[in-house]
Amino acid sequence: MARQARAIQTRHTILEAAGEVFDERGYDAATIAEILSRAGVTKGALYFHFTSKEDLARGVLGEALTVEGVLPQDSKLQEWVDAGMVLAHRLPREPLLRASITLSADQHARALLGTSWPGWIDYLGALLRRAKDQGELLPHIDPQETAALFVGAWTGVEVVNSAISGGSLEAKIAALYDHVLPGVAVPGVLGRLDTAVDRGARMWRAHQRSHGADTPASSV
Amino acid sequence: MARQARAIQTRHTILEAAGEVFDERGYDAATIAEILSRAGVTKGALYFHFTSKEDLARGVLGEALTVEGVLPQDSKLQEWVDAGMVLAHRLPREPLLRASITLSADQHARALLGTSWPGWIDYLGALLRRAKDQGELLPHIDPQETAALFVGAWTGVEVVNSAISGGSLEAKIAALYDHVLPGVAVPGVLGRLDTAVDRGARMWRAHQRSHGADTPASSV
Repeated sequence: MARQARAIQTRHTILEAAGEVFDERGYDAATIAEILSRAGVTKGALYFHFTSKEDLARGVLGEALTVEGVLPQDSKLQEWVDAGMVLAHRLPREPLLRASITLSADQHARALLGTSWPGWIDYLGALLRRAKDQGELLPHIDPQETAALFVGAWTGVEVVNSAISGGSLEAKIAALYDHVLPGVAVPGVLGRLDTAVDRGARMWRAHQRSHGADTPASSV
Repeated sequence: MARQARAIQTRHTILEAAGEVFDERGYDAATIAEILSRAGVTKGALYFHFTSKEDLARGVLGEALTVEGVLPQDSKLQEWVDAGMVLAHRLPREPLLRASITLSADQHARALLGTSWPGWIDYLGALLRRAKDQGELLPHIDPQETAALFVGAWTGVEVVNSAISGGSLEAKIAALYDHVLPGVAVPGVLGRLDTAVDRGARMWRAHQRSHGADTPASSV
């Protein structure tokens, strides 16, 4: 492996360990010592990539805005559904993504680090604007308002689900879309949207097949 | 004031101070010393009512499940809307209510204390079941599933709103209902529901007029 590829791999290994520790302990209780031992790298390697716990948390949040697995669709409303469904599929499997919600939900960490929510709202708002330009949305829908509401609703459904039932997040997010879409989509589009519980898993497998499973996730 | 009434008043004063401090600092950073100084009561008075910081936080969470201001309606779907709109009106004005979201969103505090979410889901689920019995809901709607989704969505919209824009929570929650109701209500009911931004404020004022403004909030 070339030196640069190895450095990227090491950075990713450290971020995954940091994600696990932040997700399990929360920001305040997490320690660099535990991240080091979890990652199995040297102190020198960690400090080559990250200068502090805050820097590690920023690195984790930097991975949070990922649309990997969301494939372009003719229907931009379907792409909006896919963004939420792919994330619902990936989140329970990727501590690095879960950690970004843990950090954002924590008032103290949020004040220090900010959140990925504005980035998500802009990305989903742009998708909904294109859906509106294509005539897929009901005329009164404001794409940016709907995007902001949805980011809040998605996040809250995940937090309450993991706090209470711990049932399938994909089923909950599919139900969230089924509740919201009749108030958003024009009737002719509504019936053609795929909100099946396994939509995210199918999209993710198609993406894995075309890209190979070993590539570290890329961010927007 | 009779001794018992004074004790209830003191307990409420302490809880309001605790709510402010938990809301501003989070659970871990909050101290009994700051709650004491904020409440302006003696140490003896505080420890008469609460044995520890954990006990104070439980007291705060005990106040979170409040339907004060939600008046009985013929349409149980309207009552479901009112529950969310009255809370959206009260939350920005009552640190004690905001604190319960801060405590529930904090992973560590949540593991220690639990949340008021199961209670809210049961209360809203019961309202939606009565709405369904009256023929107000679309036939495929599962009242308990919709209630759980809505508690998550409401909470997440509040958290993201206060983290990002800090705009009017009532406007956001009204928009959330407008997005969700077409997927929940039968068409004949949908057009008669009041989801105006000031719905919560009007309900709350009507309640205040009939009960007087000084009564401490009651819980279910």
